[in-house]
Amino acid sequence: MVMQKYLDKAEVLIEALPYIQRFNRKIIVVKYGGSAMVDEELKRNVIKDVVLLKLVGFKPIIVHGGGKEISRWVGKVGMEPKFINGLRVTDQDTMEVAEMVLNKVNKELVSLVQSLGVKAVGISGKDGGLLKVDKKLSGGEDIGYVGEIRKVAPKILYDLLEKDFLPIVCPIGMDDEFHSYNINADDAASAIAESVSAEKLAFLTDIEGVFYDKDDPSSLISELRPDEAARLIENGNIGGGMIPKLQNCIDAINNGVSRVHILDGRIPHCLLLEIFTNKGIGTAILKDDEEKFYNGND
Amino acid sequence: MVMQKYLDKAEVLIEALPYIQRFNRKIIVVKYGGSAMVDEELKRNVIKDVVLLKLVGFKPIIVHGGGKEISRWVGKVGMEPKFINGLRVTDQDTMEVAEMVLNKVNKELVSLVQSLGVKAVGISGKDGGLLKVDKKLSGGEDIGYVGEIRKVAPKILYDLLEKDFLPIVCPIGMDDEFHSYNINADDAASAIAESVSAEKLAFLTDIEGVFYDKDDPSSLISELRPDEAARLIENGNIGGGMIPKLQNCIDAINNGVSRVHILDGRIPHCLLLEIFTNKGIGTAILKDDEEKFYNGND
Amino acid sequence: MVMQKYLDKAEVLIEALPYIQRFNRKIIVVKYGGSAMVDEELKRNVIKDVVLLKLVGFKPIIVHGGGKEISRWVGKVGMEPKFINGLRVTDQDTMEVAEMVLNKVNKELVSLVQSLGVKAVGISGKDGGLLKVDKKLSGGEDIGYVGEIRKVAPKILYDLLEKDFLPIVCPIGMDDEFHSYNINADDAASAIAESVSAEKLAFLTDIEGVFYDKDDPSSLISELRPDEAARLIENGNIGGGMIPKLQNCIDAINNGVSRVHILDGRIPHCLLLEIFTNKGIGTAILKDDEEKFYNGND
Amino acid sequence: MVMQKYLDKAEVLIEALPYIQRFNRKIIVVKYGGSAMVDEELKRNVIKDVVLLKLVGFKPIIVHGGGKEISRWVGKVGMEPKFINGLRVTDQDTMEVAEMVLNKVNKELVSLVQSLGVKAVGISGKDGGLLKVDKKLSGGEDIGYVGEIRKVAPKILYDLLEKDFLPIVCPIGMDDEFHSYNINADDAASAIAESVSAEKLAFLTDIEGVFYDKDDPSSLISELRPDEAARLIENGNIGGGMIPKLQNCIDAINNGVSRVHILDGRIPHCLLLEIFTNKGIGTAILKDDEEKFYNGND
Amino acid sequence: MVMQKYLDKAEVLIEALPYIQRFNRKIIVVKYGGSAMVDEELKRNVIKDVVLLKLVGFKPIIVHGGGKEISRWVGKVGMEPKFINGLRVTDQDTMEVAEMVLNKVNKELVSLVQSLGVKAVGISGKDGGLLKVDKKLSGGEDIGYVGEIRKVAPKILYDLLEKDFLPIVCPIGMDDEFHSYNINADDAASAIAESVSAEKLAFLTDIEGVFYDKDDPSSLISELRPDEAARLIENGNIGGGMIPKLQNCIDAINNGVSRVHILDGRIPHCLLLEIFTNKGIGTAILKDDEEKFYNGND
Amino acid sequence: MVMQKYLDKAEVLIEALPYIQRFNRKIIVVKYGGSAMVDEELKRNVIKDVVLLKLVGFKPIIVHGGGKEISRWVGKVGMEPKFINGLRVTDQDTMEVAEMVLNKVNKELVSLVQSLGVKAVGISGKDGGLLKVDKKLSGGEDIGYVGEIRKVAPKILYDLLEKDFLPIVCPIGMDDEFHSYNINADDAASAIAESVSAEKLAFLTDIEGVFYDKDDPSSLISELRPDEAARLIENGNIGGGMIPKLQNCIDAINNGVSRVHILDGRIPHCLLLEIFTNKGIGTAILKDDEEKFYNGND
Repeated sequence: MVMQKYLDKAEVLIEALPYIQRFNRKIIVVKYGGSAMVDEELKRNVIKDVVLLKLVGFKPIIVHGGGKEISRWVGKVGMEPKFINGLRVTDQDTMEVAEMVLNKVNKELVSLVQSLGVKAVGISGKDGGLLKVDKKLSGGEDIGYVGEIRKVAPKILYDLLEKDFLPIVCPIGMDDEFHSYNINADDAASAIAESVSAEKLAFLTDIEGVFYDKDDPSSLISELRPDEAARLIENGNIGGGMIPKLQNCIDAINNGVSRVHILDGRIPHCLLLEIFTNKGIGTAILKDDEEKFYNGND
Repeated sequence: MVMQKYLDKAEVLIEALPYIQRFNRKIIVVKYGGSAMVDEELKRNVIKDVVLLKLVGFKPIIVHGGGKEISRWVGKVGMEPKFINGLRVTDQDTMEVAEMVLNKVNKELVSLVQSLGVKAVGISGKDGGLLKVDKKLSGGEDIGYVGEIRKVAPKILYDLLEKDFLPIVCPIGMDDEFHSYNINADDAASAIAESVSAEKLAFLTDIEGVFYDKDDPSSLISELRPDEAARLIENGNIGGGMIPKLQNCIDAINNGVSRVHILDGRIPHCLLLEIFTNKGIGTAILKDDEEKFYNGND
Repeated sequence: MVMQKYLDKAEVLIEALPYIQRFNRKIIVVKYGGSAMVDEELKRNVIKDVVLLKLVGFKPIIVHGGGKEISRWVGKVGMEPKFINGLRVTDQDTMEVAEMVLNKVNKELVSLVQSLGVKAVGISGKDGGLLKVDKKLSGGEDIGYVGEIRKVAPKILYDLLEKDFLPIVCPIGMDDEFHSYNINADDAASAIAESVSAEKLAFLTDIEGVFYDKDDPSSLISELRPDEAARLIENGNIGGGMIPKLQNCIDAINNGVSRVHILDGRIPHCLLLEIFTNKGIGTAILKDDEEKFYNGND
Repeated sequence: MVMQKYLDKAEVLIEALPYIQRFNRKIIVVKYGGSAMVDEELKRNVIKDVVLLKLVGFKPIIVHGGGKEISRWVGKVGMEPKFINGLRVTDQDTMEVAEMVLNKVNKELVSLVQSLGVKAVGISGKDGGLLKVDKKLSGGEDIGYVGEIRKVAPKILYDLLEKDFLPIVCPIGMDDEFHSYNINADDAASAIAESVSAEKLAFLTDIEGVFYDKDDPSSLISELRPDEAARLIENGNIGGGMIPKLQNCIDAINNGVSRVHILDGRIPHCLLLEIFTNKGIGTAILKDDEEKFYNGND
Repeated sequence: MVMQKYLDKAEVLIEALPYIQRFNRKIIVVKYGGSAMVDEELKRNVIKDVVLLKLVGFKPIIVHGGGKEISRWVGKVGMEPKFINGLRVTDQDTMEVAEMVLNKVNKELVSLVQSLGVKAVGISGKDGGLLKVDKKLSGGEDIGYVGEIRKVAPKILYDLLEKDFLPIVCPIGMDDEFHSYNINADDAASAIAESVSAEKLAFLTDIEGVFYDKDDPSSLISELRPDEAARLIENGNIGGGMIPKLQNCIDAINNGVSRVHILDGRIPHCLLLEIFTNKGIGTAILKDDEEKFYNGND
Repeated sequence: MVMQKYLDKAEVLIEALPYIQRFNRKIIVVKYGGSAMVDEELKRNVIKDVVLLKLVGFKPIIVHGGGKEISRWVGKVGMEPKFINGLRVTDQDTMEVAEMVLNKVNKELVSLVQSLGVKAVGISGKDGGLLKVDKKLSGGEDIGYVGEIRKVAPKILYDLLEKDFLPIVCPIGMDDEFHSYNINADDAASAIAESVSAEKLAFLTDIEGVFYDKDDPSSLISELRPDEAARLIENGNIGGGMIPKLQNCIDAINNGVSRVHILDGRIPHCLLLEIFTNKGIGTAILKDDEEKFYNGND
């Protein structure tokens, strides 16, 4: 009888404890971009959320782009945009500006995190040889210094995390000749999350999530398995811009990331909402067998 | 008799061993600037030397400026230089460009070091809160975002060195409100060397060293004690541009750096020459009591 | 008045805080064996509990045996059991099979822990020179490769714990000539717990605990001091198989382990019950002065 | 609607989470002295509090003096006190006794902390070259081996904290010739807190805090900004003995310490009261901009 | 003139120093197998060489197979080999034996290394989640638990190396359901070398190296670039068994390994011969641009 | 032919390399005492030697006593020596003085090492719970706070060595009630060397070494195996004071120390002579099988 009481008590613990797993030194990679990077208040909110995730025990890594800011500076410097077959070309001069701007954005985020009392270190994919790339062709055309990640050397990230820093990464890599290349920030976030077997990868986007029917706002998908996601792409449910993002999600799950989130960065504190509330917002891509273990009847 | 032979053998060892001290996990801070930063061949030579110092057991830290490159980009962007009482003002726009350029130079050095097979990490004084500054006035005038170092938080440097990276630092700091400030690279190198109690601090300059008589090329000083250096300044032997540099040397010695070198960066491999040859080149500033210990008759 | 209110508040904190001590980076060694190792559901429960202990802040180390599995494989390979004076002999061939089986069990546990999202590393007492043994004689007779622990070199355990792994140890050691020896798993767990000054050592057994009167099931002892335990042995209260186990408990307490638990591994979640409920189950062996400090009236 | 509910939930989290920041691997330097060092019960309480701070996640460092105990031993050894212009002189013999006594007190604190289940390491400012001093003159007079801190080399503290020890520091430093010097413990605590950018620095004193009117017990100041504090000194509101202590507080805030507390060490558990209750007791000196961030309307 | 002498001296240093690079904390992965694993004297020689490499400053990692020993035990246990379309099938029972044998061989190597005074830790690809695999089909057929590496999580290797252990890895991995899979040891060595950006990867084989004409013993190739190697495969110069090995070499070079060696493990001390003598023995596969840097005329 | 040349070259390397083993991150424990502690020049020589050992790659730990200095201060304080059955008693007052003096000596050594450019940390056996003791009785009599080591917790030593400090240990330990006890320094050195599996343990003594015939100065023994040493004790060859020292040597070898040296601390640089010359001076106690491995004909 008494034993039964104890067993009940243990049962409660066992039910409660899995949630702890979410707080415990797990790596979470946040791809930061879109509106959340332009609007100053959203920006502050996002960085605050990431800082809070660190304070409660996560090990966050921020990967960011620099999109509009690069265009602004390319114009400022008076450079002529170049095109091949209608595609913008990242020639050496453009790459130089892009690298300057991305590093500037990077260090601004470092300042912001530091001002919240957390130590941050801003790096690019060149530091510690983090990102090694090949030239990415677009339809067979050479469009300049645009890189495709061939290899991630995550040691620098492990080292910074071990020393209790919050790493902030801008998506620049080097090829075998140590030239600089611009990398799509989504690709970088995904590759980095895989390389450190992140618990979570969260994309801050300007959409609400993935929809079964892109024209029906009520068809938002909360949870998706990789094979369902692949089917959605195949079936043409998914709109153009979303395809590579969803492909990144699928790849991440297949390479050791436990959960990927597509979040609406325009909702204040979307990151916290997702992580600390039950259902979350946006769309989560999960491993096929997740949630079975602790929720089963054993 | 036999014992005498052994004692002789030990004597030889004791004579030889002090040199080992120079190779053994000692920190050497290299202020990299001037011509050595413009001429591509000199640049390659300097970085090679630093890499070799690391390979033989030193723990080097590079601190660099960006001088001419900043001016070039300020012009490129079409900004009007501003002056107060004849002094160039680093207003917010100029600071933004300066920060972009310094980070660009920083990552170029990272590439170069990595291409030589050594892992480097490029940081600014914002990363890990490394450099905290106050606004520096010039003759009482506010000349904008020019910072004077108030405090160095060396933890990030210790951490990178422990993890076997070569840290490359660009001289940007933050004030209490987390604004960016430009810092004189010599000051940054000196403050950083002090904060980690570096064994050596080497300034790569465009002069041959310190002269007793600045008009007599044969009066180059090989070794200088801090008090002699102070006297040279007082007596007016030292020319204007040299005074702050020499003051940095004196401060460094008084704050725990064992040896400071003023080297002619235009001489190929001046760093190796200084460290691996007996007399060295350029001018060395030493602690008053250095060299006494092992060379005494005990 | 106001101060009184504050003092009351602090009092509550001070009462609550000691419990935190149980969660905070303390090492807990779990000797895993018996039924809990045979029954698949119990097995899963035990490993889940250990994983949860890690997630809430403990640093667990698992030490396991392989008993029945070794016998099964010795038979499978068609080896003839050898005896000296009625004692089973661990000759070189038997030892080879034992080492294979123990390492197999070890890696199965690694898989199980990893599947629960926690990084584990499985080692034997040979790795990092963890367990150095002497040959153990039985009544003066050489019974082969059965080892008695002479020394534990805990560095490998500290290193794995520092790097956030859960170490899983199988009880094989080396003698001075680097031959493999089988070690009693209870002895190994006890010696390992002592070497790292573990906060807790828990033996999962097939009994309910220690009894004052082994024939009276109501005489289960909840808490025992080492000297009482020694007296129980002396007075013949303790049955044969229990004596060496209790001796291990006494030794552990006398060598820096704070608390030892003899738990009934057949009760699901016995580990959690013991640690997170007030009275616990099974028998705890405590230091003479434990519990006095925080519960006193100071 | 549903979203609103989620937003409310997140709001609660965001309000709650800042408090977590206070528990999370932040460094807190405790200057331990005065009555709390003489009364055995207060002593035990203080050390218990510091241990609890460590157990809930802080990284505490204790800096202590040894005042009365030094005088007692100087007398015991039969030494004649020496004076210059009415000032007690710390000659070589006195310094030898002072160093012995301070190290004795240091190791007693180590014992006490260890007895509470936490690993401590006692060091002086000589270990790892922690404290480098200059001779301190008093009104131009040489009063012997009394040191003024010139430089703190915090590596040893970072290393001990990283390895999960509680460092206990006694205020002895070395000059350039490696002679021992006695240092004021308040100065040492302040310099150490600055060197590691401590979150908090707490002075345990024998007064209730800082008063606007030292003769009006109801005028206790709860919170003070550095510039107000400076004004209080200037205006003569502050009594003699308090001036250097308050100056230490101002310096600490200006050099990267987030909050300084002047606490009444005679109140049991004053440290816990201050940190875990809202208003706290004693006087807190804060950065000008603290509390704005999380409490603002963003 | 004097300067010239110094420059000459520096020149000598600069020529000499590159060799140091080979000794300095570089990772070298040694695939150990073939005759060198069967012949006791060769075995001892190989392990001695690896130990010496560690003692002179390299960070070696051993990856080994277990080939003939597995077959021997499969027979010993009386298991019937199964075939599908003429291919041997690794069913669950075979896998169990394979895992036992590989771990046995692994721990034997640990013993051997430890007996030479160096600390070793033996792990499989399950420990720390090192090797994640997919099922490998052979011509579309399911041949059981044979794995193809999908991902390497090198953290455990970095951690062991940082703590000064010599890691010894046996090629077993886990799939997403945490089942055990056998992996080709060459593949494992290659993937591991890539994941840690090893300086060198050395295959100990039973052949002299790669030949231009496999029937002409005088046509041994000393150095090969990846594209030449690919051409040799394409042109049919390379014999069947050599093709996958050479492909591993090419992949490794293309993924960040600086040099790969195919060595004749039957030559005593072939590893030392290769690394410490100028030409080396066997065939080296090099990056296209290697050796240019230091040997050029800059 | 060519191959023969290569083999010759490798042979030379293989002959030379074992010596490197002596320099490579091996722990050497130096028991420092006797005349070498009294004579200022010998003192300086010993510490210089230890510092040089660190600079060439060893990891030295110094363990020291304080003998005569304790007696001097006990007298200075005017304490009456107490005796029981003719044995000096270490009562609480004596222990207090002893602890003060030992810590004073400890910090003097720290100063000396720091002045030679190497970072040292001075600890007692209380720090980090390094030495846990039982009361040592002398012929059944309680002679006060004299401790016998029950357990060494070497974590603090590993941590200091990993962080590149030279640990200096004074032989004070704590019992279960956290009282201070004086420990024989030879016992402490031996127990510490065992706990970290030191490569070497060197006792600096005031004798030339061990003699076969204590009356024949030509009978100095260069090398001794543990069993020979035990026989010498048994046969009465060894004089009274030497017996416990030799017993410590035997114990150390039997517990994982590779070599123990009894050196004449009165010979300048005896440590270097012993380690860097072939035969050495004094007496070395070796493992039975040492030197066989590399010097054999394989």
